[in-house]
Amino acid sequence: MTTLEIPVLIARKRDGGELTGDELRAFLGAYLRGEVEEAQVAALLMAGVIRGFTDAEAVALTEVLVASGDTVDLSALRGPTVDKHSTGGVGDTTTLVVAPLLAAAGAQVAKLSGRGLGHTGGTLDKLEAIPGFRVDLSADEVASQADRIGLAVAAATQDLVPLDKKLYALRDVTATVKSPGLIASSVMSKKLAGGAQHVLLDVKSGDGAFMEDPAEAEALAELCVRIGEAHGRRTGALVTDMSQPLGDGIGNAIEIAVAIEVLRGERRGDRLTRASLALAAAALQLTGVPEGQAAETVARLLDDGSALERFGAFVAAQGGDPSVVDDPRAVLPVAPVTLPWIPAAGTVHGFSCRRLGELAARLGAGRQRQGDQLDLSVGLEVGVRTGDELDGDTPAVVVHARTEDDAQGVIAELADVIHLAPEPADPVELVQARVGLD
Amino acid sequence: MTTLEIPVLIARKRDGGELTGDELRAFLGAYLRGEVEEAQVAALLMAGVIRGFTDAEAVALTEVLVASGDTVDLSALRGPTVDKHSTGGVGDTTTLVVAPLLAAAGAQVAKLSGRGLGHTGGTLDKLEAIPGFRVDLSADEVASQADRIGLAVAAATQDLVPLDKKLYALRDVTATVKSPGLIASSVMSKKLAGGAQHVLLDVKSGDGAFMEDPAEAEALAELCVRIGEAHGRRTGALVTDMSQPLGDGIGNAIEIAVAIEVLRGERRGDRLTRASLALAAAALQLTGVPEGQAAETVARLLDDGSALERFGAFVAAQGGDPSVVDDPRAVLPVAPVTLPWIPAAGTVHGFSCRRLGELAARLGAGRQRQGDQLDLSVGLEVGVRTGDELDGDTPAVVVHARTEDDAQGVIAELADVIHLAPEPADPVELVQARVGLD
Repeated sequence: MTTLEIPVLIARKRDGGELTGDELRAFLGAYLRGEVEEAQVAALLMAGVIRGFTDAEAVALTEVLVASGDTVDLSALRGPTVDKHSTGGVGDTTTLVVAPLLAAAGAQVAKLSGRGLGHTGGTLDKLEAIPGFRVDLSADEVASQADRIGLAVAAATQDLVPLDKKLYALRDVTATVKSPGLIASSVMSKKLAGGAQHVLLDVKSGDGAFMEDPAEAEALAELCVRIGEAHGRRTGALVTDMSQPLGDGIGNAIEIAVAIEVLRGERRGDRLTRASLALAAAALQLTGVPEGQAAETVARLLDDGSALERFGAFVAAQGGDPSVVDDPRAVLPVAPVTLPWIPAAGTVHGFSCRRLGELAARLGAGRQRQGDQLDLSVGLEVGVRTGDELDGDTPAVVVHARTEDDAQGVIAELADVIHLAPEPADPVELVQARVGLD
Repeated sequence: MTTLEIPVLIARKRDGGELTGDELRAFLGAYLRGEVEEAQVAALLMAGVIRGFTDAEAVALTEVLVASGDTVDLSALRGPTVDKHSTGGVGDTTTLVVAPLLAAAGAQVAKLSGRGLGHTGGTLDKLEAIPGFRVDLSADEVASQADRIGLAVAAATQDLVPLDKKLYALRDVTATVKSPGLIASSVMSKKLAGGAQHVLLDVKSGDGAFMEDPAEAEALAELCVRIGEAHGRRTGALVTDMSQPLGDGIGNAIEIAVAIEVLRGERRGDRLTRASLALAAAALQLTGVPEGQAAETVARLLDDGSALERFGAFVAAQGGDPSVVDDPRAVLPVAPVTLPWIPAAGTVHGFSCRRLGELAARLGAGRQRQGDQLDLSVGLEVGVRTGDELDGDTPAVVVHARTEDDAQGVIAELADVIHLAPEPADPVELVQARVGLD
């Protein structure tokens, strides 16, 4: 491709046309070699965001992203290998429950993760709240640990999907993040590079997610599934509610504690438990287990402590203090100040979920920019959900903070972020759609 | 404006919203200071190209462009000061006829031009085909010469509309040229910075122009007129045909020769003569002369030699050989080889006008890239137009080339570029719309 052809390709997308896989490969290959300007990529991205990328473009783009770096080979594992990915949200700790459930069911989950930029840290940051926990495993160590005990999570040391990192940085400053084709190809490229044969996606919908509208979230889920299947991976998705926090914990150590409490069976019936069971069952279904049997299996593996046992083995294998599974709050770091927010009696009508996450980040739980140091102890515990009736005496939120001032600052804003009213309100459906699971 | 707000502004345009003048000023000001990335500007431009810029945005953008550099002050001239601008096309030498006509009518035309990138050189390159002609006048010299003899044309030495140059270079590589708002603000910013009180635009429509469709060309003309009037300049426009070459000459010296032949009255009734008269009359109308009287005046000033006399004074004032007006082809550089193309009998049904221009550029008449050396002598003389019947004996085109091979190469392609057929064809209307002239 000559540099003269680049504007012709951009113009075609601008006018609503389609680029072939070869054209996308040549365009982005030239970008990686520094022969195409960032401005030209930005123009193409904006044209695609507005005009939409076709399925074929999204499939091709995913392929180009995967080919830009290394890939993980899990073919030597016993199998079935499973990966689970969430599009991200507030209080979303399902990985730490779903992966042990799948391990207990005989599958292998081998995850190479990056550090998160968001309301809280990523899975790596959360795990590092466990004293002694190491995330610096090699890809080979991750694979062999997954084969041995069913799950392993480490920092990505390989150069996985470098083009995705480069494109994401560009999309972030050019308002070209919100595109189903770009989001799906980014998500799926990382899953494909990760090597698992079965991929289960948790696509969030609501104010705390990329996609606020359930129909848009479902369309994104469908696109991800088509991309995965087009690349030969058995792929399915649940669309789940992110109009409110999923788990009660928002903050790194707090989320670990809550996840362990779920695994200990101490939070039966709560949304995080229900979401984790639904996701684990869906993932098992992808490996060939019939739907009803999958649901029964994961419920049993939670009830009988098998999943908790796998989590303990996982923590021990990666150097963490195994007693965390017995009494998480005694082992995990604790913030110096905890203050409750006790609103007047009324009913919860909804959340500004994104703002709730931002409050946790402000306490020190999340990074504002790459490289920021996190305080793993701080965050929020949110005990209420939409539809809940409050009696005026019980705390709705407990703030875990470094200082009294920090805590008071957050409490002063909570009434704007959790919406209460006198009249009753309906709870919000947790699982809103199932895709690729029939 | 903080850098964090930039993606918010881009997102608003992406979603079809409008930016205020203050926001455009802040965005582009930060770009000029290097605080906004080219990629962010490219994303904004692409969003605007697809979503459309509003009139208010185009007016504000024009203002930001003008404010980015110096402006010319023509207020000391007797007046009326007039500027004429063509959106560009093949064989378009009207400036060299219209400006002397306006000078003869008592107006002043003071033009600061850039070098063209296109099928042929710009007006400056064409004028330099006249031996001795100097274009290195200062802005003050241009103004005082225009006041004295009615017209002056020189290379822009001042830093006029630098943001336009920067944006154009970016638009060129990002497929964001074709936007009425961007084209109109670019054109009008240069006219406003040029200082004339009356602005007459020649907006071309057809295969050889920016806007292929007459309705789009008219919409562009209307937008330019609204921008000019919003900035207090009396502005009007003609939409003229560019589905075929305007003048017979395509090439620098050849176009000068043809323009002088028009001024000498040797090309009465041809399209260049008719277009020049219509444009000059429209410009006079803008200065307050009633329509019928304006047409009569310019026709008389061509017939009685007044316009030719002004052209001679202009050439002499800028150091050119004044005998060029008596026998242009004896004074101007001549290509070593001329070869005729004589097609079989038939009727001209149309042109691939842009490709015809590209053939002239390939002979050496136009720049492929900034800084290329032109051969001022080479080009094409095209003696036919759509609807003309050919007898099979008369040359339709004469090729002026450096070598026999160059000439033969072009002749081999002419049958693809000038479309002939046996059945009759209607000529194409020259002036297709009048805007702001009632």
